[in-house]
Amino acid sequence: MPVGTQATIKGLTPDQLHATGTRMLLANTYHLALRPGERVVAAIGGLHTFMGWEGPILTDSGGFQVFSLSARNRVTDQGVTFRSHLDGRLLELTPEHATTIQEQLGADVAMCLDHCPALPASKTAIADAVERTIAWAKRCKAAHTRTDQALFGIVQGGSHADLRAQCAEELLALDFDGYAVGGVSVGEERAEVREALAVTTHLLPVERPRYLMGVGRPQDILDAVATGIDLFDCVMPTRNGRNATCFTEKGYVKLRNAAHRSDPGPIEEGCDCLACRRFSRAYVRHLFMAKEMLGPILASIHNLTFLHRFTSKIRAAIAVGQFVQFRLDVLEALGQ
Amino acid sequence: MPVGTQATIKGLTPDQLHATGTRMLLANTYHLALRPGERVVAAIGGLHTFMGWEGPILTDSGGFQVFSLSARNRVTDQGVTFRSHLDGRLLELTPEHATTIQEQLGADVAMCLDHCPALPASKTAIADAVERTIAWAKRCKAAHTRTDQALFGIVQGGSHADLRAQCAEELLALDFDGYAVGGVSVGEERAEVREALAVTTHLLPVERPRYLMGVGRPQDILDAVATGIDLFDCVMPTRNGRNATCFTEKGYVKLRNAAHRSDPGPIEEGCDCLACRRFSRAYVRHLFMAKEMLGPILASIHNLTFLHRFTSKIRAAIAVGQFVQFRLDVLEALGQ
Repeated sequence: MPVGTQATIKGLTPDQLHATGTRMLLANTYHLALRPGERVVAAIGGLHTFMGWEGPILTDSGGFQVFSLSARNRVTDQGVTFRSHLDGRLLELTPEHATTIQEQLGADVAMCLDHCPALPASKTAIADAVERTIAWAKRCKAAHTRTDQALFGIVQGGSHADLRAQCAEELLALDFDGYAVGGVSVGEERAEVREALAVTTHLLPVERPRYLMGVGRPQDILDAVATGIDLFDCVMPTRNGRNATCFTEKGYVKLRNAAHRSDPGPIEEGCDCLACRRFSRAYVRHLFMAKEMLGPILASIHNLTFLHRFTSKIRAAIAVGQFVQFRLDVLEALGQ
Repeated sequence: MPVGTQATIKGLTPDQLHATGTRMLLANTYHLALRPGERVVAAIGGLHTFMGWEGPILTDSGGFQVFSLSARNRVTDQGVTFRSHLDGRLLELTPEHATTIQEQLGADVAMCLDHCPALPASKTAIADAVERTIAWAKRCKAAHTRTDQALFGIVQGGSHADLRAQCAEELLALDFDGYAVGGVSVGEERAEVREALAVTTHLLPVERPRYLMGVGRPQDILDAVATGIDLFDCVMPTRNGRNATCFTEKGYVKLRNAAHRSDPGPIEEGCDCLACRRFSRAYVRHLFMAKEMLGPILASIHNLTFLHRFTSKIRAAIAVGQFVQFRLDVLEALGQ
């Protein structure tokens, strides 16, 4: 899922987004609750109508942004109080509130409010966050009324197998529609992400979607799929795109490099995205040097197309029992 | 013609641009000569290939930007010396140079380098600019070698009927493929533009394209068409769009206004552009408030579609002999 923080994947129309292979996207509850407000979105008919996207949408709970973006946030068992990063207003986010806002936004999948502590954290702090995450998940489940909206639980616990197991066990008892692995990709190294996944994914039911939040590098996706993860979201394809960095099977291409100045070739040979079919590296580089919007747009289109092609190759490799070899080949080509 | 200053109509792909009704566009020689340089564009195969636009392209001579954007420009009979607004390099633009650069860029229509004095100017200064414009037009014609590229002359002379007539007569003797009315819309009031047109357009041959440079407001287009103008370029639809101001048949709509906060209606009722078919004013307003690229993109798409629909209505009205009434109706609806 690409990330449409403010109900738009930056610079792309829904048709352009669909053409990249995108079928589901994520929008951020925190940002949308602050602006334009969930009531405005509901008045227009919900997120799908508001942003013109007919495919599935997932909203996060808002918790991650409260912890990372807002000023002076304070966590109690009741919820989180924080100041808006836009205007400094003092606000409170509780499990009930997070659930109601997401029902008003009207995405297809809502997420429970979880407590995602800043890392590194002591095991005691992480255990504390796990307890709170479980208590909050119960309250989200109780507050959730829309039958046309799925609700996913989020497993916390860092890289501690016992805490992850405790969290998963309690969440499974609540019978969520899907489960997410939270608290990874917030600054850890690849090895730590792998460790957290190794002790978590297998605890989650294979017949429900298993979702790794905030991960999107090809090598990390491969690691996660190897443990059984089905669903990802990440800002990287679009954020990297806006910074003129493009994914290719051979690694990153930095489009601002002078080497591309007169290069008539596409961003990636053989890619069928709009950017690669119609434009040269020389042109896309020119757009970035001239600070033209079309540069970020074309690079985002390429990166999203690349990642969707990549995950579709993963599905094909799994289907024919070749995933292990596929993974090795990809990592070798990337030099990972 | 929308204006693609840096070989891109800001934020729009060629397909999106074509869908607005755009069939021809303008690119700025000054900007492209400075960055990426005409040699880079030529190496990629010319502007059409470079920017992925198959329709006709017109390049201006670069003169207008030299006079308006560069620092410390100095005009002699030889040409203009100026410092680049990007890096301060000292450069010279002569009629021969302007012609060669445009041949390298490879547009379908090139423009002669003219001398467009800053207004207000004395009649003596304008007469001086007319002499220079005629002399430079001769040198452009002599330097022009591409047979697959049209070359247009530019009539200067302010609102002085005698100077306009002198300029037009000398240019007509040079037999250009088309003629432009220059030196308007650089700060004058509507009445002054009308005066310049009244003494100029009728001097130009009806069987060649007659082009009014830099004009794009509906009321100004109507004034110009009434005198016989066929072709326009203007940054307004896209620049206004980026500033959240949209054209409608009833005048401007400012999308940032709080009145649109929860408005489920389109920018303009009955408009078939992508923005109006798929999105509410509430959503487009949200995009502008959140500083999202898609806001400028959608507003630009609407404004371009509006203007192309408008000029197509003008053509239809002319075809049935109803232009005078059509003009009155439009001006009344606009409150002009």
